[in-house]
Amino acid sequence: MTQATDKDRVWIFDTTLRDGEQSPGATMTHNEKLEIAGLLDEMGVDIIEAGFPIASEGDFKAVSEIAMNSEHSVICGLARANFADIDRCWEAVQHAGKPRIHTFIGTSPLHRAIPNLTRDEMADKIHETVTHARNLCDNVQWSPMDATRTEWDYLARVVEIAIKAGASTINIPDTVGYTAPVESADLIKRLIAEVPGAEDVIFATHCHNDLGMATANSLAAVAGGARQIECTINGLGERAGNTALEEVVMALKVRHDIMPWHTAIDTRKIMHISRRVATVSGFAVQFNKAIVGKNAFAHESGIHQDGMLKNAETFEIMRPEDVGLSGTSLPLGKHSGRAALRDKLNTLGYEVGDNQLKDIFVRFKELADRKKEVFDDDILALVTAASESDEHRLEIVSLKVTCGTAGQAEAVLEMDVDGVEHQATAQGDGPVDATFKAVRAIHPNAARLQLYQVNAVTAGTDAQATVSVRLEEDGVISTGQSANTDTVVASAEAYVHALNRLAIRREKSGPGTDTREISYKDVH
Amino acid sequence: MTQATDKDRVWIFDTTLRDGEQSPGATMTHNEKLEIAGLLDEMGVDIIEAGFPIASEGDFKAVSEIAMNSEHSVICGLARANFADIDRCWEAVQHAGKPRIHTFIGTSPLHRAIPNLTRDEMADKIHETVTHARNLCDNVQWSPMDATRTEWDYLARVVEIAIKAGASTINIPDTVGYTAPVESADLIKRLIAEVPGAEDVIFATHCHNDLGMATANSLAAVAGGARQIECTINGLGERAGNTALEEVVMALKVRHDIMPWHTAIDTRKIMHISRRVATVSGFAVQFNKAIVGKNAFAHESGIHQDGMLKNAETFEIMRPEDVGLSGTSLPLGKHSGRAALRDKLNTLGYEVGDNQLKDIFVRFKELADRKKEVFDDDILALVTAASESDEHRLEIVSLKVTCGTAGQAEAVLEMDVDGVEHQATAQGDGPVDATFKAVRAIHPNAARLQLYQVNAVTAGTDAQATVSVRLEEDGVISTGQSANTDTVVASAEAYVHALNRLAIRREKSGPGTDTREISYKDVH
Repeated sequence: MTQATDKDRVWIFDTTLRDGEQSPGATMTHNEKLEIAGLLDEMGVDIIEAGFPIASEGDFKAVSEIAMNSEHSVICGLARANFADIDRCWEAVQHAGKPRIHTFIGTSPLHRAIPNLTRDEMADKIHETVTHARNLCDNVQWSPMDATRTEWDYLARVVEIAIKAGASTINIPDTVGYTAPVESADLIKRLIAEVPGAEDVIFATHCHNDLGMATANSLAAVAGGARQIECTINGLGERAGNTALEEVVMALKVRHDIMPWHTAIDTRKIMHISRRVATVSGFAVQFNKAIVGKNAFAHESGIHQDGMLKNAETFEIMRPEDVGLSGTSLPLGKHSGRAALRDKLNTLGYEVGDNQLKDIFVRFKELADRKKEVFDDDILALVTAASESDEHRLEIVSLKVTCGTAGQAEAVLEMDVDGVEHQATAQGDGPVDATFKAVRAIHPNAARLQLYQVNAVTAGTDAQATVSVRLEEDGVISTGQSANTDTVVASAEAYVHALNRLAIRREKSGPGTDTREISYKDVH
Repeated sequence: MTQATDKDRVWIFDTTLRDGEQSPGATMTHNEKLEIAGLLDEMGVDIIEAGFPIASEGDFKAVSEIAMNSEHSVICGLARANFADIDRCWEAVQHAGKPRIHTFIGTSPLHRAIPNLTRDEMADKIHETVTHARNLCDNVQWSPMDATRTEWDYLARVVEIAIKAGASTINIPDTVGYTAPVESADLIKRLIAEVPGAEDVIFATHCHNDLGMATANSLAAVAGGARQIECTINGLGERAGNTALEEVVMALKVRHDIMPWHTAIDTRKIMHISRRVATVSGFAVQFNKAIVGKNAFAHESGIHQDGMLKNAETFEIMRPEDVGLSGTSLPLGKHSGRAALRDKLNTLGYEVGDNQLKDIFVRFKELADRKKEVFDDDILALVTAASESDEHRLEIVSLKVTCGTAGQAEAVLEMDVDGVEHQATAQGDGPVDATFKAVRAIHPNAARLQLYQVNAVTAGTDAQATVSVRLEEDGVISTGQSANTDTVVASAEAYVHALNRLAIRREKSGPGTDTREISYKDVH
């Protein structure tokens, strides 16, 4: 990427697939990462940080494939300050039309103590590693991790070194979500004013939301002169998460009067990608989340406001359409045909091939037989369920569960394991426990249930339930989702789905390689 | 309350029970409001906005009773700019040791157009109503709703009028969540500098989170001279919610170096009240919510970080104990006695009477028979379930449900209605649909299911499931919760619980009086 010629243009750097996915429990599958990358590219994200190639085989493959499929976005990979990381990163991102290497090192006193480097030793390391990256790729980003807690003189010194070594983007991470707007603006302003060569690079801001100020801190950094915002969809990320893409983008749009900067994001794609990220990560968005929460738009509240509000503007500063919420959306029914379904899918942001449409249509008809009205959210759940049915070792053949107030629940389960049918009956505390026990009777495993969550995707008691299950085994985390009008069946499917993923992951990677120990340390 | 003598003291004004509760679907029962008010008082909230007395009989009673039971906090009620509202508000808050009347009117062009008042007419109305309030109560707060979109000259003029008429607190609401930090600070600074009499009152800031900046905007207002922050627990509130109490309070604590102001909040009470508000409102907190989300503290992530982090400070700017998260918490088991349970309850922030302890202990023993380890969250769910069993017309006697992959689910239900036992069998799409249909066969009703949500409160497949159900009937919203290891039983109980509440609400209030039409218009 060349230097911005438009001084008011803010580059959006999305790290949902790296810093977001690194969030404990948010692990995504290969296909999910590809799908999300495609949506980010389509919505106008300037730079997609696709992963941390050396962290695992899975990360490497995902970054490589995202690079190959990229259309408009720069594809970036993360690398620590060593040649092996940087080489591996380049191996993955080189396939992109516009590749970038992002290398970093923790520069605050607390982080310098971990590799036990002196200031001078670290400065040398930065010079060497950025130079090495620059020899491979002409688009290099460098980050002093924990910059907001790094001594000013040292920060200025290492930023200068990185610029001299050839970094074209300098990212200033607030790794622990510690800063506040005035401080955030001042830091960038001072770096630009005082560091030699600062005028030739783009400064980026990377904020975390630990004190609830990530959005304001990012925008303050832009006011201070930063021209790249690092963010994630739904603010996904470790601890309290990263800056939320949807918040900074909409704030710049709504308050263009006092923040005269602009991005290339098509904001109408926000809701769709927000829902997809919530689904694949298993991190639900709270009702009162800014921009993308169910309640974010007053008119969505289900309260009859006709006649109360003379003017929607009275309480709304954005139109729901601006973020891709269709105000009134006609539900489909059992008489709706394939064309209507395809239209609806297009409206919801899905372009599906004929085979996929066929699969979704079968599920749609089944659902429409049971449900009078099939809403947008029902359709989204169907698409999700359909996209999940690719690889599996375990498959449920039939399930019958009896439960209630009179003691233990009982589950009778028939399940295929690698094509062979097995049967088991199990008792448990409640229908879900009994079902999961029956699954374990057929397919013994030591996976620990970290999360079990059910949401009715639409109103009405015949709603489809979407069940998310998160499992952990030897440090590997796997999630499964399923949607069904029968909660117990959805639970069984989600559990089996998560087990399938665990099995696939175990087979694909050598021992420990996919546990991502790396990604949880040393990363801003 | 007298004028602050300590110029760095920030008053915390909590409006969880007014602006938070007004959030569509977050309606709380009378007892829940009393409980939350007690917790707010105990944690050191300076002013509790307890409700909007004229909005409904229910609100009036809640505010009155909260006033009677108040210990340290000022109890405040909301009133529009008319004598009837103000009189009714005084009737309710007068019982408090420290009462406050909060009256407001929309001053922006869009809001002036609703009652169709000229600038002069509205100015007169403000003078009259604030004077009237001041004649009843010596602690009056006044708010120009939508202040951030009101013309500067008019805002300055009406603030001056309110001060002259006797208001001691002037609140500047950013009703639509429109402002940004620099603007927020400047507005307060300018009001203090230019409005005659400004030095004799406290300025308050009331922000909404539509653009994700409520916390930063509130703190910027304090930097500009405001000394009262209006906020809610978990940021509960309409649309994207209000400023989150936990965020502003912790930000002031953690960044005291650059924000040298302090509050009287006992931050160790934050987690407990956050969980209670999430439960009674039915608004779950997302994992990556700042301060109170499940993932907010890295050590809570379930990822083995031993040896990765040499020092907790490397990634943590707050200690979990500071917000009342006990780092390591020993689970109870079937051999734990009543004393251990009481100790645990105390640690979790509950002081229970002997009768209540007895009730909880019975439930605890039942649970411990089924579950090896009973965790803090299990205990919290038990306490919630116990506190919900007060008033009911409908009661489940027995339930048996069969479901699975082979067609429709069937529920056989025995239920008491006003002491008379009934029986019904129903088929449905899934166990929950069949169960709800059986309930409706016995107790026909037109309530619409707005939300159905299940969470496993602890890890493990024998976890208790907490089910939340939200119903709507003729504009009245009612929520029900229940916890059980059997999801289907918990669903039935939550549904019946919500129906009980609807019935009680219908009986207690005249037609329409509790539908709160008032509270959804004209309120910042």
